[in-house]
Amino acid sequence: MEKKRILSGMRPTGRLHMGNLHGALLNWVKLQDEYQCFYFVADWHALTTDYEQTEGIRENIWFMFIDWLSVGLDPQKSTLFVQSALPEHAELFLLFSMITPITWLERNPTYKEQLQELSHKDLRTFGFLGYPVLQAADILMYKANGVPVGVDQLPHVELTREIARRCNFLYGKIFPEPEALLTEIPKLCGTDGRKMSKSYQNCIYLSDTPEAIRKQVSGMITDTQRPRRKDPGDPDRCLAFPYHKLYLSTDILAQIVVDCRAARLGCVECKKMLADALVQALEPIQARQHYYLDHPEEVRAIIADGNERARTVARATMAEVREAIKI
Amino acid sequence: MEKKRILSGMRPTGRLHMGNLHGALLNWVKLQDEYQCFYFVADWHALTTDYEQTEGIRENIWFMFIDWLSVGLDPQKSTLFVQSALPEHAELFLLFSMITPITWLERNPTYKEQLQELSHKDLRTFGFLGYPVLQAADILMYKANGVPVGVDQLPHVELTREIARRCNFLYGKIFPEPEALLTEIPKLCGTDGRKMSKSYQNCIYLSDTPEAIRKQVSGMITDTQRPRRKDPGDPDRCLAFPYHKLYLSTDILAQIVVDCRAARLGCVECKKMLADALVQALEPIQARQHYYLDHPEEVRAIIADGNERARTVARATMAEVREAIKI
Ligand code: SF4
Ligand code: SF4
Repeated sequence: MEKKRILSGMRPTGRLHMGNLHGALLNWVKLQDEYQCFYFVADWHALTTDYEQTEGIRENIWFMFIDWLSVGLDPQKSTLFVQSALPEHAELFLLFSMITPITWLERNPTYKEQLQELSHKDLRTFGFLGYPVLQAADILMYKANGVPVGVDQLPHVELTREIARRCNFLYGKIFPEPEALLTEIPKLCGTDGRKMSKSYQNCIYLSDTPEAIRKQVSGMITDTQRPRRKDPGDPDRCLAFPYHKLYLSTDILAQIVVDCRAARLGCVECKKMLADALVQALEPIQARQHYYLDHPEEVRAIIADGNERARTVARATMAEVREAIKI
Repeated sequence: MEKKRILSGMRPTGRLHMGNLHGALLNWVKLQDEYQCFYFVADWHALTTDYEQTEGIRENIWFMFIDWLSVGLDPQKSTLFVQSALPEHAELFLLFSMITPITWLERNPTYKEQLQELSHKDLRTFGFLGYPVLQAADILMYKANGVPVGVDQLPHVELTREIARRCNFLYGKIFPEPEALLTEIPKLCGTDGRKMSKSYQNCIYLSDTPEAIRKQVSGMITDTQRPRRKDPGDPDRCLAFPYHKLYLSTDILAQIVVDCRAARLGCVECKKMLADALVQALEPIQARQHYYLDHPEEVRAIIADGNERARTVARATMAEVREAIKI
């Protein structure tokens, strides 16, 4: 039996950080064996919020691709592509926009949330209102059966299912209704305790030098209720400890928990252990980053090949859609 | 100096009637010598209001093309093409949607008007709200300097100008701001006195047989205040007389005015003169219609060639746009 298809995308934010790694990429890598995976750089989506600031998008795509390859996304197994290389996505967006009631978009909970959160930008645009329609086009273009998402993305998957149903109802069965593949995501913060994000400058990047990693880790907020070295700490309150859990062995973790609670271990030393482990864990990823940076022609070929494979599927879908709509 | 460019489109309604001829086509024909003209079948636009009923769109495109050629649109002079053959329009629509404030679309006077007029259809869709954005993409794709429109279309041209300005402001000067080319349009009604429209079945089609034309003309409402043959009539009140003015000579018109006012001429006889003139005037058009119906391969080649020429321009524009947005 053919493997089921999944699709997921990421906006081109540039070099990737630990939040991206544990929030999405490692899961993407894992899914590669079980599914036919389509992963894409959502550069048109970047315009929904950043149309006033498009400098750097191309460079971001480039580095994002290098990081994708470096963490183990495998162009032999998965189709890796760039959204804007496929005008088919724009055409399907246009066609879906004709059958999507505005109310479906207005009631989208993340729409109003984002309008408020990003109130310093002027987001009352037609395209920002419609980005779930573009997402539906992205997903349905590849007839994905599943979409790996976080909980906050569930309403979008539901909207995609509604658009699929409406399109099937109006023009005949073309699209499957994709399922959300919810994944457990470890709760990792940035070094300052907030969500890890480029704009907060609280990131540990997969491409950071050992020195930069050590510096960032040493600055991490730990247990805010442990003001002095001699006070006992609590790993459950410690904002660094989720990283320890991912990068240190069970034995060492057990020891840290005991020693931290007994005030036998200081945060400086404890975070040094973490930094060592992180530097070591990132070494093979960074070796691959360097390899790809040194072989841009190889990256270019991988992108071109991925775009081409995506295009084959997209063309077939669009032929079918045009035939169904009779346009 | 290069000729200025104009662009205009028509939804694929099928065979064309006298309303289309005098409302747009004759003007289009006339503009061919003075301008570089791009005329297109707006089949994606047809979906904004008719997404539930797409049967027949392809046939309508076909017959519309045949009628275009038959009235004198000249594929040597003008670029005649089909919108949906150019995914570039969808891509530009997508990009423009990112920079178009929703308020610009909501304040569009024809938007609310049409929502009410067509309240039997469910038009509260995202695509219907956005059709002026698609129009802007259609027009600006060819960097048109002018758009031949009726008065009711003025707000759309204004919106296109605003989108051009905003795009130029954000990404650098790419687009000219097209001017509306207002044209005097003779006020012709359908046979029942309402606007000539397929859905009212009050049309005289360019492809009607002489019998059909005579029948339609004989059924035309004339001067509603002239109940009997022996009552004097008034050509100024007569709904058929605008046609007389277009299809009969000044001498005959003068005679009709005098005889009608003196009740010396009956409407039956008067409309027979009109029908004769119409049948005769449509003869050469109909000869060309038959020619093209008999030579479908020629029509197909003209459409393919027009699409190809449009594509050359559209590709160049999109390359420029992508370079400017840096995507
Ligand atoms: S000792 Fe380690 S686990 Fe305990 S609070 Fe400090 S950094 Fe966190
Ligand atoms: S006689 Fe001719 S012009 Fe006068 S009302 Fe009748 S149709 Fe009209």
